[in-house]
Amino acid sequence: MRISQRAQSIQESPIRKLSALANAAKKRGTTVYHLNIGQPDIPTPAAFMKKIADYKEEVLSYGPSDGLEALKEAMVHYFAYFQIPLEVKNIVIATGGSEAISFAFSAVADPGDEIIVSEPFYTNYNGYASLCNVSLVPVTARAEDGFHLPSIEEFEKRVSPRTRAVLLCSPNNPTGTVYRVDELQAIGVFAKKHDLVLIADEVYKEFTYDGKVHFSILQLEGLQDRVIVVDSISKRYSACGARIGAVISRNEEVMKGIAKFAQARLCPPTLEQVGAIGAYELPHDYFREVMAEYQKRRDILFSILTSHKGIVLQKPEGAFYIMAKLPIGDAEAFARWLLTEFSDGNETVMVAPGEGFYRTPGKGRDEVRLAYVIETAKLERAAKLLLAALDRFQG
Amino acid sequence: MRISQRAQSIQESPIRKLSALANAAKKRGTTVYHLNIGQPDIPTPAAFMKKIADYKEEVLSYGPSDGLEALKEAMVHYFAYFQIPLEVKNIVIATGGSEAISFAFSAVADPGDEIIVSEPFYTNYNGYASLCNVSLVPVTARAEDGFHLPSIEEFEKRVSPRTRAVLLCSPNNPTGTVYRVDELQAIGVFAKKHDLVLIADEVYKEFTYDGKVHFSILQLEGLQDRVIVVDSISKRYSACGARIGAVISRNEEVMKGIAKFAQARLCPPTLEQVGAIGAYELPHDYFREVMAEYQKRRDILFSILTSHKGIVLQKPEGAFYIMAKLPIGDAEAFARWLLTEFSDGNETVMVAPGEGFYRTPGKGRDEVRLAYVIETAKLERAAKLLLAALDRFQG
Repeated sequence: MRISQRAQSIQESPIRKLSALANAAKKRGTTVYHLNIGQPDIPTPAAFMKKIADYKEEVLSYGPSDGLEALKEAMVHYFAYFQIPLEVKNIVIATGGSEAISFAFSAVADPGDEIIVSEPFYTNYNGYASLCNVSLVPVTARAEDGFHLPSIEEFEKRVSPRTRAVLLCSPNNPTGTVYRVDELQAIGVFAKKHDLVLIADEVYKEFTYDGKVHFSILQLEGLQDRVIVVDSISKRYSACGARIGAVISRNEEVMKGIAKFAQARLCPPTLEQVGAIGAYELPHDYFREVMAEYQKRRDILFSILTSHKGIVLQKPEGAFYIMAKLPIGDAEAFARWLLTEFSDGNETVMVAPGEGFYRTPGKGRDEVRLAYVIETAKLERAAKLLLAALDRFQG
Repeated sequence: MRISQRAQSIQESPIRKLSALANAAKKRGTTVYHLNIGQPDIPTPAAFMKKIADYKEEVLSYGPSDGLEALKEAMVHYFAYFQIPLEVKNIVIATGGSEAISFAFSAVADPGDEIIVSEPFYTNYNGYASLCNVSLVPVTARAEDGFHLPSIEEFEKRVSPRTRAVLLCSPNNPTGTVYRVDELQAIGVFAKKHDLVLIADEVYKEFTYDGKVHFSILQLEGLQDRVIVVDSISKRYSACGARIGAVISRNEEVMKGIAKFAQARLCPPTLEQVGAIGAYELPHDYFREVMAEYQKRRDILFSILTSHKGIVLQKPEGAFYIMAKLPIGDAEAFARWLLTEFSDGNETVMVAPGEGFYRTPGKGRDEVRLAYVIETAKLERAAKLLLAALDRFQG
């Protein structure tokens, strides 16, 4: 008996694959600071659990396949704050941003079709590409350009008869880059020229620093019918375990297809949708403090890391990740060593090896992704541990 | 811009596709009795919501990709009751039985591969086959045989070089058939002979009537390494909206592949898993009353339907569905007519057209699936409405 090729070839999550080593370290009594995963320590808003506590239905029944109407209305209201006019019919609630990605991929591409993506990119795109049998075709962004989008000429080189879409993420995971209006407009022109769909993962929308403003592809003129946004409450409301995301598009045919995919899996989790309504009902002020906290963390991590001459990195403009190039050949070996051999005062740090964030073979081998989602005192300690470990690993 | 073939070709759920008509009927003030969907009215056990109310984590964080350890342990304990020995490593928690199906399909089949399935079958298998680009190859079970498995000769005829698995559902949705040990053993021999995987959807395990006992494929001798069970709490604990299911297999390679699929979508919903632990901690006695209630409903629905000479049906042995052959040519037209034109005392009934439960073109056109998941008084009224409607539709 043999298992499928896709089960064999699907990449292990580089963010999670070292978890067994981390667990072993913890069992030895070592404190592990997690810089590997975007799991914020910001409390989930009380409004989320309050709404669930108020849920008094006797039967926890199936909801609508495309999500609770009240949640979609709350989202329409949320987007109106950004002057992005939506209707409930433009939204399908997904089980996490993860499912939203798979819905978007499946709606625009058939097995063997291609989606162009700027690398480094959120590694789970790989997993969904495997599951949906879609090929991700990378265009490499450079640290020297602040990981902004490569030139349109580079995108042009990747177009084939099987190209169906361009996939972007802004604010970017793993680089923290926030794309400018002009680069998004240029990509919009490119998409239109080749009759492609523009998919953007905008789950970090709220987290932009130094006064930068996020521009959504939903705001691109003349592209109304060609864009799909992948969204989630995981980071927005620090509710990663809720698994509530959404696909947003004004293209009716796309939404019709996605509605059928949604029917196939019946519905997203009901209680967590109820909680999400509570979160979306919060005044927008809620984000001010959260954003300030993340900006403070970014500044701490960035300033400690830049104190080390050997590390190459850009100051993130948004999200809560830094892609750092380390003065070592094999970042994964370093990441393993951190969990198996290194410790300082019985503490160590966990990082996500960079290679998994690239599609081009060999790229990112000397890079790591660091998430700044833990409180400042711990973050400072973790960053200093990382520098100490780096010196010891090189020595 | 074009959408994918799979988005165009995926079947609309025959259980849900008439929902818009039902909603319109309700807006007109008509009461609609839902016999179309397996949404039980049995209250979700209080232990479920209690456990969630007791959840005091500040951050609703990602859980393990393969599910909360405590939930897996509770499931191991649950299966031990049936003398089915499992270990936590044999279980991956899925987001509903739906995701469990897609994990199972993806683990054993690549795009273009085939899975043999006895029809009529749970229609959502079609949706997942489309999404996973797997072909379902039907073997037709006959009402005259109580919808028990067709002969092995029939299965043999469907084997091709691309056949990867056999998919069964017992107790069966939509027929209510509970497969006997001997027929499962025969399928086991067949699977072994052709080096196929045996997948069984056993989500209705608890619901067998007249003293019948469910036999799980996990209990098949000599097939330990070749079976995958798709499971869910949706019906077991009347918690359809929770979206908590599981894939169970003792094949390590299969579970390794599925663990990677699970990583790609990060984790199942945390709170609903917490609730599920509460449900699984209930003593097994909990099911006695529930089963008795369903058996009573089955008896009512069956006896009313058999009072009509034109309806052909078998007494279900388990689950909570009846597949009924009606004396009309087009059950879907009838189902639509029920929601758009028929009403009796401003009440009507909704049924699921049978065609969507078959893969063979033309089959099931004169059949409907009826779910007996509403309380007896309403069920009686709904069944009588159906008979009245049938007479009026024919007249």
